[in-house]
Amino acid sequence: MRFNKVVLFSKPRQPQVARVALEIRAWLESKGAQTTEGEADLAVVLGGDGTLLAAVRSLGERQIPILAINHGGLGFLTEVTLDEMYRAIDRVLAGEFVSDLRMMMDVTVDHDGTRIGSHRALNDAVINKGILARIIELEARVDEQYVSSFRSDGLIISTPTGSTAYNLSAGGPIIHPSMNAMVVTPICSHTLTNRPIVLPADVRISITLKSIQDEVHLTVDGQVGLPLNPGDRVMIERSPVVVQLIAPCDKNYFDVLRGKLKWG
Amino acid sequence: MRFNKVVLFSKPRQPQVARVALEIRAWLESKGAQTTEGEADLAVVLGGDGTLLAAVRSLGERQIPILAINHGGLGFLTEVTLDEMYRAIDRVLAGEFVSDLRMMMDVTVDHDGTRIGSHRALNDAVINKGILARIIELEARVDEQYVSSFRSDGLIISTPTGSTAYNLSAGGPIIHPSMNAMVVTPICSHTLTNRPIVLPADVRISITLKSIQDEVHLTVDGQVGLPLNPGDRVMIERSPVVVQLIAPCDKNYFDVLRGKLKWG
Amino acid sequence: MRFNKVVLFSKPRQPQVARVALEIRAWLESKGAQTTEGEADLAVVLGGDGTLLAAVRSLGERQIPILAINHGGLGFLTEVTLDEMYRAIDRVLAGEFVSDLRMMMDVTVDHDGTRIGSHRALNDAVINKGILARIIELEARVDEQYVSSFRSDGLIISTPTGSTAYNLSAGGPIIHPSMNAMVVTPICSHTLTNRPIVLPADVRISITLKSIQDEVHLTVDGQVGLPLNPGDRVMIERSPVVVQLIAPCDKNYFDVLRGKLKWG
Amino acid sequence: MRFNKVVLFSKPRQPQVARVALEIRAWLESKGAQTTEGEADLAVVLGGDGTLLAAVRSLGERQIPILAINHGGLGFLTEVTLDEMYRAIDRVLAGEFVSDLRMMMDVTVDHDGTRIGSHRALNDAVINKGILARIIELEARVDEQYVSSFRSDGLIISTPTGSTAYNLSAGGPIIHPSMNAMVVTPICSHTLTNRPIVLPADVRISITLKSIQDEVHLTVDGQVGLPLNPGDRVMIERSPVVVQLIAPCDKNYFDVLRGKLKWG
Repeated sequence: MRFNKVVLFSKPRQPQVARVALEIRAWLESKGAQTTEGEADLAVVLGGDGTLLAAVRSLGERQIPILAINHGGLGFLTEVTLDEMYRAIDRVLAGEFVSDLRMMMDVTVDHDGTRIGSHRALNDAVINKGILARIIELEARVDEQYVSSFRSDGLIISTPTGSTAYNLSAGGPIIHPSMNAMVVTPICSHTLTNRPIVLPADVRISITLKSIQDEVHLTVDGQVGLPLNPGDRVMIERSPVVVQLIAPCDKNYFDVLRGKLKWG
Repeated sequence: MRFNKVVLFSKPRQPQVARVALEIRAWLESKGAQTTEGEADLAVVLGGDGTLLAAVRSLGERQIPILAINHGGLGFLTEVTLDEMYRAIDRVLAGEFVSDLRMMMDVTVDHDGTRIGSHRALNDAVINKGILARIIELEARVDEQYVSSFRSDGLIISTPTGSTAYNLSAGGPIIHPSMNAMVVTPICSHTLTNRPIVLPADVRISITLKSIQDEVHLTVDGQVGLPLNPGDRVMIERSPVVVQLIAPCDKNYFDVLRGKLKWG
Repeated sequence: MRFNKVVLFSKPRQPQVARVALEIRAWLESKGAQTTEGEADLAVVLGGDGTLLAAVRSLGERQIPILAINHGGLGFLTEVTLDEMYRAIDRVLAGEFVSDLRMMMDVTVDHDGTRIGSHRALNDAVINKGILARIIELEARVDEQYVSSFRSDGLIISTPTGSTAYNLSAGGPIIHPSMNAMVVTPICSHTLTNRPIVLPADVRISITLKSIQDEVHLTVDGQVGLPLNPGDRVMIERSPVVVQLIAPCDKNYFDVLRGKLKWG
Repeated sequence: MRFNKVVLFSKPRQPQVARVALEIRAWLESKGAQTTEGEADLAVVLGGDGTLLAAVRSLGERQIPILAINHGGLGFLTEVTLDEMYRAIDRVLAGEFVSDLRMMMDVTVDHDGTRIGSHRALNDAVINKGILARIIELEARVDEQYVSSFRSDGLIISTPTGSTAYNLSAGGPIIHPSMNAMVVTPICSHTLTNRPIVLPADVRISITLKSIQDEVHLTVDGQVGLPLNPGDRVMIERSPVVVQLIAPCDKNYFDVLRGKLKWG
């Protein structure tokens, strides 16, 4: 068998999901796979994109292959449906699967030259103004080259995987997940000519908070919040760690896109 | 003389502005106009659009004519420059001016049928998610007709005057200030087909907060913040009160627009 | 009976539509209504929005009430379905209906002071570059006030009714059909800060073609084409003629919008 | 000397440009460089982006280094100004320059399996409807995977270099010129959820014309027009040929961007 030890992540606080998780656990064990809370060689995720993002964060440096099963959400990432899940698990355990590697970003925050935060993002890093601030000013640099001072509600720095999430709502483009790229998209830019910029993934983006009047936060994959102060610098670069999504067969990326965005 | 008692509003906490304000006060008095903190028949505003919005709020029900002098900002509303100000004051005192009437909106908030807030807006009412919330759900009705459930970062309900402010950054249209209209513009809508909707000003817009997970605020003209709770209902309708902006001569609205938006 | 003479318009060159048209004709006559090619007091339209636009143009100055039945299209205007049509006709003949009045625009073209074209629009007037031209320059004025020189693929001047048609595809807002308004929306503007402008319907918009290098056309309601030459001036103002759409019951405008735009 | 034979391209039909071109020719010869109409090892381009695009097309397979001097346009590509040109030529001839490699696309057209056209693009390939057509339908595939049927005014397939041209006007993102990427951007899409898609440059994009009612054209770099018929298939892939732009010193891409787009 291709995988022996399986760790299961499921959407918390939902009795229905917990019930399905128990069924998956039983099925895995009936197939001879051991479920574990510790070192595993396969992760099974049950939930939506948020659950997957949490599982990826939880796996940290050790990104084992992930089989993601959609439960009740609109996931771009969790393609296997409940109907398909037993067959999908069987095939994956038998080694019949395709891999889809997704780049991640390492997001670090410096204050006066001291590292005050460090996170990994599969989707995006978002720097966002507080509710009462009207506009914040963020200076963006790419490999130390000055790009622009963005006066806006904030900035999204997104991976290709995250391009169909918040980035899309803010007017950013769809980026094919096989690309090594990051996109910087302003949120409600005051300067109307500030538009999304797609960058190669081998640059280092750094964002410095210039304005001083109000609260500003960094969120990473929508799940981690860090307050920022004037002069704080957020640096974003491609992570050496990649996520390996696996599925029993190659779901066409564009099929997923058409379905989610209700094209045609 | 057309006006006798003048109230002066100026941008707070700026020594330079305070100095110019003193000069204006002296000039007004040398011309025989009395400056007052009380009942006045003319308001002179010195600052940017924010100062004007604060002055309008301070005047409340009794909207006397306002001469707005721009100091150091990008104001759409404060068209008279420092260079022009003495001549502008002289002409206005002499009754040589044109008026520009701007509609306002009355914004009220109900919780369980009890009025918990009431504000007047010259620019906009904004319902906005807190930093850590990813998406909020707001149900919009127009004269009790169901419009849509907006899943987004929030909604802007703007007057024509406010259409060139936050509304424009969020993708809304420019609306000529002579119109009786309101525009409902979603902020980073999750549903990509939710687009700005321009409505006649004689309808009543009501927005109900549906989602329950995170903090949501109402801000009016960028200056008043009110936390909203699930079930709270924000109602917006045209105010019987209008703002009367006056200037020594009819500045063409489109000239202002071209200048501010750097057209051509 | 409320209506006695009925003129029927149907989508041309479609045998299926022709068959339904015959059935409608028979039904009308069985009810005692006379169908005619001449003076009528009711029009029944069978087809999509294009068919309705053609019928409106054909009716000219004499806009009798129109009952529009949708056949096979995505019509915003043709709300009655085939299933509902007999009952709808019966109720309309019996005088049980609601009216929805829609403003139109009169579009005229001058060349060297000579009128060279005159059309009426329910949806929009579009000035568009030819395929090989990259950009055209159009100078817009509102009541003789200079607005801007638009460098773009063209301009759409739309009624509220037309706001959900081409205007929406080009980034313009939705405008409630009860409004007296026109919206000027640039098509692929070279100047990124040129944004849709909503104007009161009592102004006169005039557009002058400045560039000289390539073919430019005016189309009205997508159905009339007129080549424009440098110096030609297109004037658009509200028409004294209005369209009266009738339906057996008041279909909520927002219900139609939600359905067509797949909201929620 | 680094370069010996120089071919000069200049904007046609402009006496002023022709005069500057003569001066450049004299200067080159005074420096010992031979100007030629034939085989050359350096190209000097005088004009705007259009002149550069024409020069690149004229050079075909043999893309020698290009020094582009801006004359009177808004060029993103022609960065050296008239003031800087003599010094720029001297330094380039002396071998003191930096290179900026730009990917191109090969654009071919098939009709019933027969090749009917073949072009190379530095900026973009645009498939566009004729003036009177309202909407065309284009089926896009990426490496034979079905992407979507776009109902729109047309499609732009742009290189990173072309991303700041027509693509930007149509709502597409800015793409850093060092990237190997292509972006597919719909023009006035009827389906509001059809958004720009950034793809890796090693795919083959193929676009098939589905609709049959009206004229449709392919233009390449805004300079070549080819009528398309139903069933015609346009294929776009990265060209093995690249353009080598040279300049005496490394102009920061973001400096150019800020200047052209009037940021800040």
